[in-house]
Amino acid sequence: MKIHNSQIMKIIEITASLALAAALAAGCCKPQAAEFNNSISSPDGLLTVSVGLAEGGAPVYQLCRDGKTVVAQSRLGFELTDGTKLCNGFTITDVAYGSKDEVWHPVWGEERDIRNHYNEMTVTFEQMPESSIKPQSGVSVTDPEYTGDPGNSSGKGAVMCVRFRVFDDGLGFRYEFPQKNKLRYFNIKEELTEFAMAGDHTAWWISGDYDTQEFNYSRTRLSEIRATSESMRLQNASTTGFSPTGVQTALQMKTDDGLYINLHEAAVINYPTANLDLDDKRLVFRTWLTPDAEGVKGRLQAPCVSPWRTVQVCDDARKVLASRLILNLNEPCAIEDVSWIHPVKYMGVWWEMITGRTQWCYTWDLPSVQLGVTDYSTLKPHGQHGANNANVRRYIDFAAANGFDALLIEGWNEGWEDWFGCQKDYVFDFVTPYPDFDLPALNKYAHEKGIRLVMHHETSSSTVNYERHMEAAYELMNRYGYDAVKSGYVGNIIPYGEHHYSQPIINHYQYAIEQAAKHHVMVNAHEAVRPTGICRTWPNLIGNESAMGNEYRVLINPGHTCILPFTRLQGGPMDYTPGIFEQDMSITAPGQHGKMRHTIGNQLGLYVTFYSPLQMAADLPDNYERFPDAFQFIKDVAVDWEKSIYLEAEPGKYIVTARKPRIETLNSGRLAGKSGAYEFVFKDGKEHDVWFVGGVCGEHAHEAKVALDFLTPGVRYEATLYADGPDADYESAPQSYTITRSVVTSADTLTVQMARSGGFGLSLRSL
Amino acid sequence: MKIHNSQIMKIIEITASLALAAALAAGCCKPQAAEFNNSISSPDGLLTVSVGLAEGGAPVYQLCRDGKTVVAQSRLGFELTDGTKLCNGFTITDVAYGSKDEVWHPVWGEERDIRNHYNEMTVTFEQMPESSIKPQSGVSVTDPEYTGDPGNSSGKGAVMCVRFRVFDDGLGFRYEFPQKNKLRYFNIKEELTEFAMAGDHTAWWISGDYDTQEFNYSRTRLSEIRATSESMRLQNASTTGFSPTGVQTALQMKTDDGLYINLHEAAVINYPTANLDLDDKRLVFRTWLTPDAEGVKGRLQAPCVSPWRTVQVCDDARKVLASRLILNLNEPCAIEDVSWIHPVKYMGVWWEMITGRTQWCYTWDLPSVQLGVTDYSTLKPHGQHGANNANVRRYIDFAAANGFDALLIEGWNEGWEDWFGCQKDYVFDFVTPYPDFDLPALNKYAHEKGIRLVMHHETSSSTVNYERHMEAAYELMNRYGYDAVKSGYVGNIIPYGEHHYSQPIINHYQYAIEQAAKHHVMVNAHEAVRPTGICRTWPNLIGNESAMGNEYRVLINPGHTCILPFTRLQGGPMDYTPGIFEQDMSITAPGQHGKMRHTIGNQLGLYVTFYSPLQMAADLPDNYERFPDAFQFIKDVAVDWEKSIYLEAEPGKYIVTARKPRIETLNSGRLAGKSGAYEFVFKDGKEHDVWFVGGVCGEHAHEAKVALDFLTPGVRYEATLYADGPDADYESAPQSYTITRSVVTSADTLTVQMARSGGFGLSLRSL
Repeated sequence: MKIHNSQIMKIIEITASLALAAALAAGCCKPQAAEFNNSISSPDGLLTVSVGLAEGGAPVYQLCRDGKTVVAQSRLGFELTDGTKLCNGFTITDVAYGSKDEVWHPVWGEERDIRNHYNEMTVTFEQMPESSIKPQSGVSVTDPEYTGDPGNSSGKGAVMCVRFRVFDDGLGFRYEFPQKNKLRYFNIKEELTEFAMAGDHTAWWISGDYDTQEFNYSRTRLSEIRATSESMRLQNASTTGFSPTGVQTALQMKTDDGLYINLHEAAVINYPTANLDLDDKRLVFRTWLTPDAEGVKGRLQAPCVSPWRTVQVCDDARKVLASRLILNLNEPCAIEDVSWIHPVKYMGVWWEMITGRTQWCYTWDLPSVQLGVTDYSTLKPHGQHGANNANVRRYIDFAAANGFDALLIEGWNEGWEDWFGCQKDYVFDFVTPYPDFDLPALNKYAHEKGIRLVMHHETSSSTVNYERHMEAAYELMNRYGYDAVKSGYVGNIIPYGEHHYSQPIINHYQYAIEQAAKHHVMVNAHEAVRPTGICRTWPNLIGNESAMGNEYRVLINPGHTCILPFTRLQGGPMDYTPGIFEQDMSITAPGQHGKMRHTIGNQLGLYVTFYSPLQMAADLPDNYERFPDAFQFIKDVAVDWEKSIYLEAEPGKYIVTARKPRIETLNSGRLAGKSGAYEFVFKDGKEHDVWFVGGVCGEHAHEAKVALDFLTPGVRYEATLYADGPDADYESAPQSYTITRSVVTSADTLTVQMARSGGFGLSLRSL
Repeated sequence: MKIHNSQIMKIIEITASLALAAALAAGCCKPQAAEFNNSISSPDGLLTVSVGLAEGGAPVYQLCRDGKTVVAQSRLGFELTDGTKLCNGFTITDVAYGSKDEVWHPVWGEERDIRNHYNEMTVTFEQMPESSIKPQSGVSVTDPEYTGDPGNSSGKGAVMCVRFRVFDDGLGFRYEFPQKNKLRYFNIKEELTEFAMAGDHTAWWISGDYDTQEFNYSRTRLSEIRATSESMRLQNASTTGFSPTGVQTALQMKTDDGLYINLHEAAVINYPTANLDLDDKRLVFRTWLTPDAEGVKGRLQAPCVSPWRTVQVCDDARKVLASRLILNLNEPCAIEDVSWIHPVKYMGVWWEMITGRTQWCYTWDLPSVQLGVTDYSTLKPHGQHGANNANVRRYIDFAAANGFDALLIEGWNEGWEDWFGCQKDYVFDFVTPYPDFDLPALNKYAHEKGIRLVMHHETSSSTVNYERHMEAAYELMNRYGYDAVKSGYVGNIIPYGEHHYSQPIINHYQYAIEQAAKHHVMVNAHEAVRPTGICRTWPNLIGNESAMGNEYRVLINPGHTCILPFTRLQGGPMDYTPGIFEQDMSITAPGQHGKMRHTIGNQLGLYVTFYSPLQMAADLPDNYERFPDAFQFIKDVAVDWEKSIYLEAEPGKYIVTARKPRIETLNSGRLAGKSGAYEFVFKDGKEHDVWFVGGVCGEHAHEAKVALDFLTPGVRYEATLYADGPDADYESAPQSYTITRSVVTSADTLTVQMARSGGFGLSLRSL
């Protein structure tokens, strides 16, 4: 929530390569209208950002890769609500260079070692004092309690620094407002940052919105966004579009000559979330911030920094997946003792509610309820309440028997009778169970079986109410040994007029994460803002939804899961809730209809292609019991990794990923000792060399070539392949799969057929 | 915050007098257009409310007193945001009668016994099902997490009950929405309740506003409001007018034939505050609710009730001051153990800041500060910080030596450098003292001297931030023995777009009161909503500001304090902060200028004419040391009363009040044993019969006749009169006073001259 002086005061070690950077910059694509006097290049010299002033003292930048324009001349700056324009009248008064090359270790992640390697340039733009700046406060106050002098001003004009960091895989830049400044408290009317595209690229996008990201993706040319946008929007629980050419980040694009460009942001702290709005005549994206209830798009106090604006640039789709640009631009871990944070493989009393087999609520006796007033013990239960003691015990037994760490239970607490669509403020208290949910006894039962229960805090988007009860809610969790919470933000936000992505609500999510950390609670926030790498700084944020997940069932387009790792997952892990083996809704929930569009092989592949330290086996125990051999892969697969290799990738088409489990995690006691992955790796009490490979594909079938050269040479591995069956097809035979075991070495290459919307899982264990 | 079923389910004891009521109603003033088939009269038979349906099934009421129209035919009802009109199409399906006559005892107050005596009529208005009611939710939802059936509806049409209670001194009525109802969750576009005045009455009013009541009063005819309003508005820290004919409640009026009519409301819980807007052609007031950030004027869930709309009607101004209508309409005390609640006579390190002699803030080194980041120990103090250890000790010494109970200290905590006007969210943490304020040591020092320190929580109107820190803030208070807090709400509200009087913020104030009660903390909330009698239910709410108080210094018009008891104080006590002996600002704070417009006698009178269980001696110790003989009255006067008698009263002109201290309170240990009032009553170890009398007057001098017939006959009393001097005048000789001692009995009448904006204090103690 707070922006620390240390964040902008931090002195970057200046190590080397300044001369190199300047030399490389000279060979870059030609500047356009402006004079770009200041440039810096990536460590490999391919990517160069150039910065200067256009006519009228307007700050601009451009980005080139190997002589090709990635972002043509684009403006920088802001317009403030008081009429101040921070987009012209500037001179450049300082340019500072630096660089960094370090390796850091995430608490959990796709790899143990992450290299953070960049060159940096910070450009100071300064307006003359009294130029276009209006006074900060024109309030004439007569109430005598307001006589305090707020302090001297510095005599400086408006100062805006822009810090550029150029990595081999992309650019990050952010605005910084130092304390010595005409600007003290200032409100953003518009952020003017632009991204001028050099061509009518292909893009994978979802429509811009202030409240939801839960849409199917479109793949179109930029020029086709306007015509497609409306038809791709769903009427979700809270939906607020703003423009037919508005799109969300991370936005994945591909140029006609094969460059992958991805626009996103990093470290959105105390600032609204950005969408992008496309000027589709000029193909220029402008930053479109989420307004608050008064229409203000950000309230800042100097000294402060903006989030990083990012332009990831890769010449291979696999490099997009391997990029750690967003994480690298976030601050290091802020939690000193991280011993309580651990990956989680879990099940849930949840899918049966999502599908309508059971209910979150307890009774239909009353048209509305009042917490603390309604006496549930006097009401007639409707008999379809999912979170009842017997049912939960059944899930605990199943989860324990199959090597899971945890079990989520939704609908356990009073208030679900009228929680949705009423904008009810005092909707849940987060501590009072329904009469048929014996919270202490169920936790005791679960703990005896090596299972942790996962708490559920649906807020109904009343953040005011959630904050009032948060401390007691976390205390209840501590008392009974819950160490993770799934929070939810369904519906329109209270405070009224705010949005899921406006600054005050961004601050709420951050507040919830930080308060949870104090209680050693891990957070998996659904319907909250899409992540921007904050999990590096706050690794107790182990998951987010913020995209259309499996719960959308029959609405999900094939190929969806081949897009999300390029877009949504760039900012952090997603609780996609994979593992749905029964596609036919009428079987899972009698009376429902429709079929999900994926094969069982596809669902297995997701455990590897979708990185998350929190992985669910989302289907019902009944459904898993029907496919015990396929379920074995879910039992075996790990959720935290030493190393990841992206074998094949193309947005929307296919992804094949190989990952090596992080043995340190399995051994650390941070996971239950009996976890399935531990059992798999430590078979017969001996540590084996293990890899997992997963593949998914989109609307079209795909033949994956899995070269096993990542295995240790000379070692023989038992390979178990869970693949789509020969006749598998998401429409005609979604449950067709074959399981084959073989012995392989690093010299082998496996050919795996993936059906339409299919996939596979592959486990490899040294003999 | 919650509306309890019990509130509307409560069965009123039906005792008697129904036939009487009906009989009396028959003789009332003639109904107008509508058919008023249902009437109920006050216990004394003088006041009659009649209720019926006008054309189109529109609910209407009228109010008469002794044959004269007080409120002519006026409509009832609502318009909802979904287009539903709850103002026509109704039939009356039930009329229920009841009555009550009880005596209850407030925890503190103007008298120990309060009689609650009324007749009641509840009229049920019902629309036909599917008539004008639109569906409650038209949301089409595809996100599968929202499948819960919110419950069955009852099959009833919209049902709106109106409960009327008629007391001898006025009418209260409120809307009640039962659970069996087409209405489940519904949002108010406009409350349509009207008050049609029967003449162009004289009114004492302040301009309507959503954020402040801190204006001088005007006295005009109703028809003159429009022309006067704008000139009487001040630009306060947060000011939002809505209409040139908007006025606030309590609104005091007087008819040409001498009837005093007062419009207000009682028990505003989970509902926005009402202003009134005058149709000055028809002389009809309509209820004008405060909108929230989305423009909604109230969000309700059935079952629920509205606040009471009140029409106080008295034939003598003294009866207005004696009326307990607002308290009687509130619910009984909700706090079981009230032993920790006690009246407080206090001083403060405050006036020196208000006058500019010292500062709330600590340094001028930085243009803005960041809590938790800014290290105050490294900053240069400006040397004018009022809340420093030495200064606070000096106040503690003075307060202890003069029989006070408590000392308020403002500006003790980090953040005052930029607290105002920036809409800064994280502005205070309420727990971190400045380097020169040793909180534990000062509390220890104070407690050793029998003084409690009063905590200060200025929120800068960031209610979000206050709620985040409230628990820790109250815990700090508990840890160090603070048992009272002055909270402040200066500036524009955060959440953005909300108002001081909108429903979410009303709920915040209530939340703060209830959380404080859990911590045994008493609350004195400044700039919060004006009270509506909630202190009956929550007697830890011992004070509010919510009007222009003494801190406005030279801006206060003479006569102001002769109006407030008729208006602002109707809802509950005001922390007016009286006792300013030094009117000349340049003496209190060198460099300041201007003179306050009152005499010292006036300030003394306020301790009796202004009822509050929390009374301040607001001036500096230095100033009191210059007038030790006059200061003696402040030391002696009590703050909690057995009985009060209103001897003379006329709005804006004069008030003379006699009060007998509540010995029970002085003896209970709820006040420090050494309090000045205790010393006065128990002189020489013997309990004396004691009365205090106070008088204040307005722009014109007034000769008060104080008949002492309230004294015990046959007993001799020592009378000490602190009166304006013969030459006293607020402009020419504000510090002229005379103190005379005499022996009196109940047969005596004292004649006391009050100067312009003057007054007097009189203590009477049996010999």
